[in-house]
Amino acid sequence: MNDQIILKNRPKGKPSEDNFELQEIETGKPKAGEVLLESKYISVDPYLRGRMRDEESYIEPFKVEEPIESMIVAEVTDSRNPNFSKGDHVIGMLDWKKLQINSGENLRKVDKSLAPLSAYLGVLGLTGLTAFLALDKIGDLKSGETLLVSGAAGAVGSIVGQIGKIKKCRVVGIAGSDEKIEHIRNRFGFDAGINYKDTKDMTKAIAEACPDGVDVYFDNVGGEILDAALQNINKAARIINCGAISIYNSTEVPMGPRPEGILIKKSALMQGFLVRDHIKDYERAIQELAGWLKEGKLTYDETIIEGFDKTPKAFIQLFEGRNIGKMLVKV
Amino acid sequence: MNDQIILKNRPKGKPSEDNFELQEIETGKPKAGEVLLESKYISVDPYLRGRMRDEESYIEPFKVEEPIESMIVAEVTDSRNPNFSKGDHVIGMLDWKKLQINSGENLRKVDKSLAPLSAYLGVLGLTGLTAFLALDKIGDLKSGETLLVSGAAGAVGSIVGQIGKIKKCRVVGIAGSDEKIEHIRNRFGFDAGINYKDTKDMTKAIAEACPDGVDVYFDNVGGEILDAALQNINKAARIINCGAISIYNSTEVPMGPRPEGILIKKSALMQGFLVRDHIKDYERAIQELAGWLKEGKLTYDETIIEGFDKTPKAFIQLFEGRNIGKMLVKV
Repeated sequence: MNDQIILKNRPKGKPSEDNFELQEIETGKPKAGEVLLESKYISVDPYLRGRMRDEESYIEPFKVEEPIESMIVAEVTDSRNPNFSKGDHVIGMLDWKKLQINSGENLRKVDKSLAPLSAYLGVLGLTGLTAFLALDKIGDLKSGETLLVSGAAGAVGSIVGQIGKIKKCRVVGIAGSDEKIEHIRNRFGFDAGINYKDTKDMTKAIAEACPDGVDVYFDNVGGEILDAALQNINKAARIINCGAISIYNSTEVPMGPRPEGILIKKSALMQGFLVRDHIKDYERAIQELAGWLKEGKLTYDETIIEGFDKTPKAFIQLFEGRNIGKMLVKV
Repeated sequence: MNDQIILKNRPKGKPSEDNFELQEIETGKPKAGEVLLESKYISVDPYLRGRMRDEESYIEPFKVEEPIESMIVAEVTDSRNPNFSKGDHVIGMLDWKKLQINSGENLRKVDKSLAPLSAYLGVLGLTGLTAFLALDKIGDLKSGETLLVSGAAGAVGSIVGQIGKIKKCRVVGIAGSDEKIEHIRNRFGFDAGINYKDTKDMTKAIAEACPDGVDVYFDNVGGEILDAALQNINKAARIINCGAISIYNSTEVPMGPRPEGILIKKSALMQGFLVRDHIKDYERAIQELAGWLKEGKLTYDETIIEGFDKTPKAFIQLFEGRNIGKMLVKV
């Protein structure tokens, strides 16, 4: 038998296990041109919360009573598609199913000998691509500049910080515990860190950690930390709006100080970034990231939860700050 | 005798005549290398309000008890600088004085035979440069796109709209009276207009006037009209934060709905624009603008107030929406 996980109903505020349901289903057999896939690793990511909102308020919302999809590494266990052989490993935006049939159209083969399979969901997957391409397209880091990163101990944030060091910037990370701050300094080479849970005046704390001001702010959280960062930006600063985990669970329209005055005063830029707008740049980014991995300039953490049925729990834990690095489910 | 106008004290909220003082002063005589200038036309602009804030909160704030400065067209009445002759007309960032001595360093000669002197403070001055260069550097207008402009009947807005039509866009203007909407449609060729003072639901009104969504929003006002525009932006929209007249007079931190969620969802960009960051592009912009003027593709309005002592009043009227087009003082 086969299992799938569907969106049972849309979360209100923070997601809970009640929003999901594990169902037994039939698998079926691949027709001509199709492949049968066995899921190996499932990526859970904060942006999926956005897709759980209703149709009006987000792009490509998930449908209620249908499976969630996310990036999954799978093994081809049967193939009637000439591009894939049994035993190939592939990555793609796939359903939360143990087994599934796929046309192969949007699958990409991955090389198990180059890096562990799980890396293709992290540093060589959307996580690494997001860090690399957002800095590449918007950040435009220059040697000697100051890069501030929120969610710094997270999957994207930790790679962003390391790229900042490769580009010879001062890198300051914001995270939610002293352990995380220790970790980003010791393991990822951040120059300084701010534990926001322990800080009353974030504006002042950022000013102290960034004595030359902030040139690029890589924002994974939005909300009040973004407000505090804006108070510290330099002329011609670039703010990358990559995530807004602090407001994803809001049930009302989140309010804050208007940014337009500061943006004008500083000739600064705030730009939203969605990695899937840049598919044509993926190959170039993976090449560069894989090179840095090989040279030992880039390292990464994973939090791996075992068991397909634990996928909703792993997703929910993202909002509790319990993962270090990329959160994955090993099926 | 000579007159000057100083900042007597910093405005709280909307500026009033009490914030300024007209003083009689001595003129002095130009030394070697200097010129004596007689002011002909003085430009009053909303951004000057920002420079009237205190030192902490704005770049290059004016000092209390010292003259205001703005762009002025003046005639050289005496010259001890080899680059200028008596009778030359020049433009520069000059003090609000009838007569003044200047080193000539930051003066640019203007050609009275090419366009009327006042045009160098408007369509061929910072006004036209702001419209042209903000669209050039941030707007990146493509044929067939929708350009929304606030402050559309104002000096910058009316040029922005005309450039939008030259670039073959659908151009929609927002202004504060039915007369202004009539005017931008009839005189400047806007495709549609919204009288915001007469509109309860701006989000809906923009949606109706921009059936294909908003690709570029040229924002001169900030605040709630910006909020409504954000609700209507297309994927990869560009929002040019050129002015925020709705919040310049705020005495408290202005609050509003947080934009980061929409910016991410739409991969959109909000960028502050200050024309003086782009001095190296001025000549190219003036050439292009002068060409359009000559071909009759560009026209402009002026509101000219007569009398040097009326300069503060002219400035204050900017915040009452009483000017049509560029507001100038004829000395």
